[in-house]
Amino acid sequence: MPGTARRADRPADRLPARAGSRYGNRPTMKDVAARAGVGLKTVSRVVNGEPGVTPDTERRVQEAIEALGFRRNDSARVLRKGRTASIGLILEDLADPFYGPLSRAVEEVARAHGALLINGSSAEDPEREQELALALCARRVDGLVVIPAGDDHRYLEPEIRAGVATVFVDRPAGRIDADVVLSDNFGGARDGVAHLIAHGHRRIGFIGDMPRIHTAAERLRGYRAAMEEAGIPVAESWMSLGVTDPERVRRAAEEMLSGPEPVTAVFTGNNRVTVTVIRVLAEQPHPVALVGFDDIELADLLQPGVTVVAQDAAALGRTAAERLFRQLDGTFLTPERIELPTRLVMRGSGELPPAR
Amino acid sequence: MPGTARRADRPADRLPARAGSRYGNRPTMKDVAARAGVGLKTVSRVVNGEPGVTPDTERRVQEAIEALGFRRNDSARVLRKGRTASIGLILEDLADPFYGPLSRAVEEVARAHGALLINGSSAEDPEREQELALALCARRVDGLVVIPAGDDHRYLEPEIRAGVATVFVDRPAGRIDADVVLSDNFGGARDGVAHLIAHGHRRIGFIGDMPRIHTAAERLRGYRAAMEEAGIPVAESWMSLGVTDPERVRRAAEEMLSGPEPVTAVFTGNNRVTVTVIRVLAEQPHPVALVGFDDIELADLLQPGVTVVAQDAAALGRTAAERLFRQLDGTFLTPERIELPTRLVMRGSGELPPAR
Repeated sequence: MPGTARRADRPADRLPARAGSRYGNRPTMKDVAARAGVGLKTVSRVVNGEPGVTPDTERRVQEAIEALGFRRNDSARVLRKGRTASIGLILEDLADPFYGPLSRAVEEVARAHGALLINGSSAEDPEREQELALALCARRVDGLVVIPAGDDHRYLEPEIRAGVATVFVDRPAGRIDADVVLSDNFGGARDGVAHLIAHGHRRIGFIGDMPRIHTAAERLRGYRAAMEEAGIPVAESWMSLGVTDPERVRRAAEEMLSGPEPVTAVFTGNNRVTVTVIRVLAEQPHPVALVGFDDIELADLLQPGVTVVAQDAAALGRTAAERLFRQLDGTFLTPERIELPTRLVMRGSGELPPAR
Repeated sequence: MPGTARRADRPADRLPARAGSRYGNRPTMKDVAARAGVGLKTVSRVVNGEPGVTPDTERRVQEAIEALGFRRNDSARVLRKGRTASIGLILEDLADPFYGPLSRAVEEVARAHGALLINGSSAEDPEREQELALALCARRVDGLVVIPAGDDHRYLEPEIRAGVATVFVDRPAGRIDADVVLSDNFGGARDGVAHLIAHGHRRIGFIGDMPRIHTAAERLRGYRAAMEEAGIPVAESWMSLGVTDPERVRRAAEEMLSGPEPVTAVFTGNNRVTVTVIRVLAEQPHPVALVGFDDIELADLLQPGVTVVAQDAAALGRTAAERLFRQLDGTFLTPERIELPTRLVMRGSGELPPAR
């Protein structure tokens, strides 16, 4: 707990003491000019590598830059060079383990192309997504991989026209035509639910994320399709969509599992929902079948093992990033939608028969 | 698998076709000047908000900027304003779940201060860490939270002198005096090993990360201290440090568990090691006790539940970020070392007696 933090003694400062606010304390070109005893334009010439400065003056300016720790404007340099060798990745949630392998795959591709990756998180807030995307563009990333929180990406059109490569991943872009790399969310959910039906279940619950999220809506559509194909009418009380917060998910699961006609199986719409439902099912008096969308670590070591519809998160990231660099190389001319298949991994929980 | 990707048809482009490489295709101030029919200096005046431009000319320049999608230099603007309202976070591995809650906590603090968070990963490579840190400084972040990969951070001294707030987290800074927020790695490991000794174990293995990593070395030191305090001489074959790659960890665990005098308990040095050792122990003919450093998701639902020395990853991130913003406000004058306690969470695996 931070409240009980201990503070160890340290040797005396080797850096200057920090007094007063640092905001606004960074050295400017004016400070460099004053220290070097030259005009602002001369500093600008040196910083920008323009001609018209004597070697002696240039040395004085460089010394002042070094002494003050002045950093010339990186974006200006980049503008002249024409490339920054950096790409941005906008995630939805830094703490969701699904995005770990996806981010790492994007980074590996970026590194193979000699580019740095900078990330940010929208925290599922469309305004934050836009703020972050434009902030990264202003910092001259060559391209953006976006896991969108919003459904209107027209704000990116000027950036795309200005040459920023853009690929959406996990969820499609809204109101603009852009490359998108997705899992087969509909097909994966339909297969997972059909698997439960094949094991004798008819009363099957669906617990998913907020319906405005593309993946959540697609997976619900897959659930409905599987039920319809099997001729099973779906009760409203079997479906619950909302935030993936553990309390909300627990309540939803407990409601479906109580009453005169409880569900005998649950299909969970993503890994955050699955981990909570696993806990609820462990407390039930009799076994309840479970198939979850997304694989989870240690799912095979639980008893029963958790049957999942696995996405290949690393392949999503890799495919999106490779596509981004192909855009930057000018290989493709038309935005495309690339859909990656999912994989049903049977481990026990999805093969349980209905209780009683 | 990406190889089997399907590509759906898309409606016709609404954006201009992308032909040729994009690198270097972005509009420059020169393009704006040409389109507006003015000189470069006039564009510069408009972009920088300097006086000496007639309203009519300014409008022509603004129209050209809009039409071309030119973005003025963000860093230059920031330099004038004196703050960017953004901080950077350098992680070690984007896919390690330990960093999820830490990153999210840093982001929440940043957001509460009206700042954006941009992340990058060093992938445990000191050169990459330096490249990324300097790239973020060049992009004018106000501060950096660093989980260091390297052990020499003198490269940051000019940045710190120039006003970049800097806090190290999870591992200390090397060769510079800087704020650092750590878990009590030594004490946590010592307590975890002492717990195994209290349950009757004497032959206890230690499997950890690479010894050059501060946390790995500290946890090994805690293991040695607990053994020494109990008067148990440690065999070299009981200790294995190296990469957390599953094959390496599996081999290490299997070696300790075989031979005439196998270990009866294992202490694992971090969550990546723990998940592999759990798998190895599940295959053993008799129960082997386990205490792991770091909590892991679903550890309580395994059989037996996994006893861990838990760090509060969110508190580490929150404490570091709050410290960063206090530096920016000028509240503290001397770099400090803040150590957060760990917590032993007993769930079964650490309370098993020695087999036989």
